[in-house]
Order: sequence, then structure tokens, then C-alpha cells
Amino acid sequence: MDITFVKIGGSVITDIEKPNSARIDVIDRILSEIARSRSSSRLLIGHGSGSFAHVPAHKYKVNQGLIDGNSMKGAAITQNVAARLHRIILDRCNENGIEALSFAPSSSAVSNKGRIETWNIAPIIEAMNRGFLPVTYGDVVMDSKQGVAIASTEEVFRYLAMHLMPKRIIIGTDVDGVYTSDPKKDPDAKLIEAINESNIAHIIKESARGSTKIDVTGGMKGKVSNLYSIAMETGAECFIVNANVTGNLYKAISGKECKGTKISK
Amino acid sequence: MDITFVKIGGSVITDIEKPNSARIDVIDRILSEIARSRSSSRLLIGHGSGSFAHVPAHKYKVNQGLIDGNSMKGAAITQNVAARLHRIILDRCNENGIEALSFAPSSSAVSNKGRIETWNIAPIIEAMNRGFLPVTYGDVVMDSKQGVAIASTEEVFRYLAMHLMPKRIIIGTDVDGVYTSDPKKDPDAKLIEAINESNIAHIIKESARGSTKIDVTGGMKGKVSNLYSIAMETGAECFIVNANVTGNLYKAISGKECKGTKISK
Repeated sequence: MDITFVKIGGSVITDIEKPNSARIDVIDRILSEIARSRSSSRLLIGHGSGSFAHVPAHKYKVNQGLIDGNSMKGAAITQNVAARLHRIILDRCNENGIEALSFAPSSSAVSNKGRIETWNIAPIIEAMNRGFLPVTYGDVVMDSKQGVAIASTEEVFRYLAMHLMPKRIIIGTDVDGVYTSDPKKDPDAKLIEAINESNIAHIIKESARGSTKIDVTGGMKGKVSNLYSIAMETGAECFIVNANVTGNLYKAISGKECKGTKISK
Repeated sequence: MDITFVKIGGSVITDIEKPNSARIDVIDRILSEIARSRSSSRLLIGHGSGSFAHVPAHKYKVNQGLIDGNSMKGAAITQNVAARLHRIILDRCNENGIEALSFAPSSSAVSNKGRIETWNIAPIIEAMNRGFLPVTYGDVVMDSKQGVAIASTEEVFRYLAMHLMPKRIIIGTDVDGVYTSDPKKDPDAKLIEAINESNIAHIIKESARGSTKIDVTGGMKGKVSNLYSIAMETGAECFIVNANVTGNLYKAISGKECKGTKISK
């Protein structure tokens, strides 16, 4: 059976305005969509950190590594806070009767300047083969060059995709996909339904220039670039969909028609 | 600098009579002893599960693997409950200013009938080299033969000792060490201060017979046998001490005189 990776964005499952607040009702609704679609493919779930780890990660500049006397403390705190949201997800899986197992990148992976280099993924493969739902997340990992680094869920998916060759990668965010400009500011903003070799260069170029024409800002810009790399390297079809819209994740995982942006090679 | 492994027994840090109750005051006191003794050697901490994971582990017979329709659910619940106590320990480390990082065996190791076979310990080595305190624990791991298995803290230490070659392994329990008979029942019970090649055969033989002369019952019997194996294979000196007595762990870690049982080759 095909493998599908599903990311649940941190901005979906936490209240971004309020540190350390998980949206339990949203998590439960998303888990029920995931449970419903498990028969269509073998799933691996990853989730972001939202208002949990992003706060200390930013404060202690964890992505830069061990740079000063507070860096070790910052790494320890950030790893712990990321794990706290992760445990909430696992708690909800158990409460909802989903046989999920946790796989923390920090326990098994080592990166090189934030790019994962070694990771024993044998337990994840064994878990998938036995029918468990593996759940991983963006995490603070040990780094051979800078001491510690942040491995985002996208980076975690990149490494896992190279080894597990998923057919589809679904990225559940709080927007409908990639737009030609910021839909919150520009009434003429249009959803880009497909990104592939025919338009990726244009999109990256426009956003690199800071053009308002194609507003692939911040997180979304990095996502598009990362997902296109994964698509190129593994052949996976990647979909950015709005996980705040009930049913979207179910449809996307099941291969049904769903509003969003498809990124493929 | 020499490496020392320290186990904090589940019966010390939890209330064994009451499911899922951590003894926060004891955890804090033990962490302060560990913090005080960090200058004497490079430490790695492991902890048991006490009244957390032992309850579902027993109920679902997790140590036997995937044996019936409830086994996957049982493995998922047990792994999650073990992680819950683990997060409490990490929370307390952070609260007490200890730069600790979590290493979950379930995220990285695969066992064969409960004996760990593969584990990427590169992140643990990296963490120790950078001065972090690695914290691991007895966990539910994927098993290549029986699906899932329990890797006790002793089994985790056995695997890690083969690769990290610690000089000393300190086992903090709720008793003073190994006795010639049950000290709670027999006023003539004597503490065995040293177990090595001169008496190990006698001790194992007597306890195997179920003799009351040498009462290495239950968990303690397994501990002695496991620790003697580790001592034989790695040359590590193992000490069983009473972690409920304030100062004992500090003394044992620092290599000072401390009541207890020394197990060596």
C-alpha cells in the first residue's frame, strides 16, 4: 500500500497568539479525519510546534546552534516544550483509539547545520509494517557542526521521504494554498493550483525579489522551496491544503478532489 | 573524563501504590544530588516507570509482544504513559537549571525478543560531548521478532554500556542493596557488600532454588544477574544503593564511601 505523509501545521493545532495553548477540539477533529482515511494508504504524521516551541526557539536562537552561554539552556527548554505539544497529540491519539507511536527526531537523528544526516528509522519502518501510526514532529536535534539545530517538520519529511518514498505528502496549514499575492490584503489574489517545473522558477524568482505579485512570504516561501525539492528528489506529489476546513485533510489523504496547491516535479 | 550511568528506580520517584503519581519532592532532591556530582564524571541518567507504565504494561502483557487484538492498543498506551513520567523528569531538570536532553529508546532502538539490537546512539554521544545531561528510560520498543517489547532501564544500560564503556553504573533503588534474606522479614538478614566471581554462582544458585537464605527476589534477582553480565562484558563497576537516603546517590556517583552492594567482575 502507498505511503502518505501528513503534516499538521503548528498554526492549526495551537493558538498562535497564546503560548503553550493547544486547540484540543481541532486536534480531535483532525485525528478523526486521519483515522477515517487510514484505509487508503499507510500514514506517517508529523506536526509543527506553533505557540509551544517557537517562543523559546526564537528567544534562544536555537537554529543558530550553541552560540553563547544561554544556548544549552535554550536547547533543553525548547526540546522539552516541543515534546509537550507532541505528548498532547499522542494523548489525543490514545483517547481517540488510534494506535499511534511517538518518534522523536531528537532521540535518533543528528543533523549537519540543520540538515539531518544520520537517523535510525528502522523503528519507524517496523511500526508502519505492524500497522501503527507513527507520529513525529519538528524538533531540536543534536548537530555535528553547530551543536544543536532545529529540524523542522519539513526537514524531517525530506529525510524520511528519501528513505520511505511516499506517494503523497499533505501539508495541512491555515491557508488554502499558495496565492499570487496575499489574499488578506489583495482582493485579486489568486490561488496557484499547481506548482511544477513550468512555473517554479518564476515563483521562486518573484518571491526572491520581494515582489508583491507572488507573495510566497515567510513560512510559505520556505515550504514551497522545500516541497519542490522533495518532489524533485523522490517523485512525491505534495499538496498544501487548509486543515482548518473540515474534511480537507480527509479528502487530500484519500486522493479526492480538494482545494489547495499541488507541488510536483 | 570517566562516564557514569545512574538509574533512578521507578519505586523511588513514583508512589508505587498510586497509579501515575510522581514524587516531585524526591525527584527534585535526587536531581540536586546529580547536579552536585556532575563535576566528577560525565553522567547519563536512566529512570524506571514505577506506577506509571507498569500498570498498562502488565495489563496488556506488552513484554510478550503483539499477542492479541488488544496488544497494539496496549503498546501505544504503555509507551505514552512511560513518556509522561519521562516528561515530568525533564520538566524538573529544566526547572532546576539542569541542561538535560531526552533520549527515548522507542524513537531509535529496535530489539529482538526484548534485547536491543540496533540503536543510533550518535545523538547521545554528541549530547555528552557538548556537556548536556542525557536522560533515557525503560520504554516500549519495536521488536523485530514479536512486534513490540519492553526494554527495561537495565537493558537500555546494557546496550549503552557496551558502546559507551562507563566506569561506574549506579542503581538507585528503595533498598540498601542485596541482602542474604528479606530484611523486612528476617532480623538476621545481612547486606551483601560485594558480588563478584567469588560468590555470584552461589547467589544465583540459591535464589534460583527459591531458598530463603539468599533472597534475591523479583526485580532484585533480575537486576543482579543483568548487572553482573554488564560488569563481565564491559568491566564497569555497578553499585546498588538506596536512593531514598539523602546523599547516597551523590556519594555513589562521586566515588565516595556509600552503603550498598558492589557488583563487579
